[in-house]
Amino acid sequence: MSLPQPVRLYDQPRAPNPRRVNIFLAEKGLEVERVNVDLMAGAHKQPDYLVKVGVPQVPALELNDGTVLTETVVICRYFEALQPEPNMMGRDVMEQITIEKWQRQIEFRLFATVAACFRHTNPHLAVLEDQCADWGEVNRGRLDARLGELDQRLAGREWIAADRLTIADITALVAVEFLRVVKHPIPESYANLLAWLERMRARPSAAL
Amino acid sequence: MSLPQPVRLYDQPRAPNPRRVNIFLAEKGLEVERVNVDLMAGAHKQPDYLVKVGVPQVPALELNDGTVLTETVVICRYFEALQPEPNMMGRDVMEQITIEKWQRQIEFRLFATVAACFRHTNPHLAVLEDQCADWGEVNRGRLDARLGELDQRLAGREWIAADRLTIADITALVAVEFLRVVKHPIPESYANLLAWLERMRARPSAAL
Repeated sequence: MSLPQPVRLYDQPRAPNPRRVNIFLAEKGLEVERVNVDLMAGAHKQPDYLVKVGVPQVPALELNDGTVLTETVVICRYFEALQPEPNMMGRDVMEQITIEKWQRQIEFRLFATVAACFRHTNPHLAVLEDQCADWGEVNRGRLDARLGELDQRLAGREWIAADRLTIADITALVAVEFLRVVKHPIPESYANLLAWLERMRARPSAAL
Repeated sequence: MSLPQPVRLYDQPRAPNPRRVNIFLAEKGLEVERVNVDLMAGAHKQPDYLVKVGVPQVPALELNDGTVLTETVVICRYFEALQPEPNMMGRDVMEQITIEKWQRQIEFRLFATVAACFRHTNPHLAVLEDQCADWGEVNRGRLDARLGELDQRLAGREWIAADRLTIADITALVAVEFLRVVKHPIPESYANLLAWLERMRARPSAAL
């Protein structure tokens, strides 16, 4: 089946969700035209952007049939269909399901926790968010336990969801590296997690 | 490809995420053995449950090869593969992507907002959650705008993501009906949303 082709990616390289797509594209060896959206200036909340994209979010991907895709995982799934190798979302049904399970588990339990900590405790975000400092601190208090879940999953495993790097590893890498922004160190006892992080950081895509 | 078969679904019919799976199964006409997990008694946080399922969540689905699936959407994707008709997650790549886009958009923007309002403002939940009343009220304050996005999407459309009922409609139905629990009425001006809700409620699956 012939797919519509990518036109441009609405991007913001410093933000975690666009970074997930950028790492995914680097691992695929794919290039796409990018437009940087100035989140701190609220460019994603301007009427023109909302008419085109539908929601105040980056990343978004415009295709040459007029479709605009939102949602990080959806954009990755499109690129996986456009260029299946290297496969990062599963070769058969059960592998797809297993990878999606881990991707979502990391997204909801770890990535969302780091993001909430950042959004609700960082003074620079006060212009963009209805901040609740208490909620930010609740999330900060959960970080070590959530990192521990990832450490436990990585015991005796090289990658999170399959015998190779998948989208689950990318979601986890971006979440873990965002800990720096909320000034939360990884506990030194999480040796499985730290060894995996070293493997991830050795890849050229991690420099993005 | 032959898939492992379902053994039992860890369920809690009154909770929103298990309800999504139950409606999905009813629309497929599938039956599965169920075990009710008593969330208010913390049964999902007991060591036996955590060893089996990995995370303190329902729904979870045990398969006859020992796999335990978590994540509502992942469980639905398994059942979609097990019995493809009626199709609710897409017949080809672009339809799958479009349905996933709407499913996630509703999940993150509407469903999560209703859930946060419930978790952080309902006194009965204080035993299970680190409640932040301010955060609950921020989410309550967003509900009408998020319902408005859904109303706008449904202008001139019978269903949210395709020419038939999909998983996106199920996620939206469960979110919208959970408004009753947080005592938030749907604004009467949202005529597209109210007409869609009537269509959804006319289906036998909505009685679950």
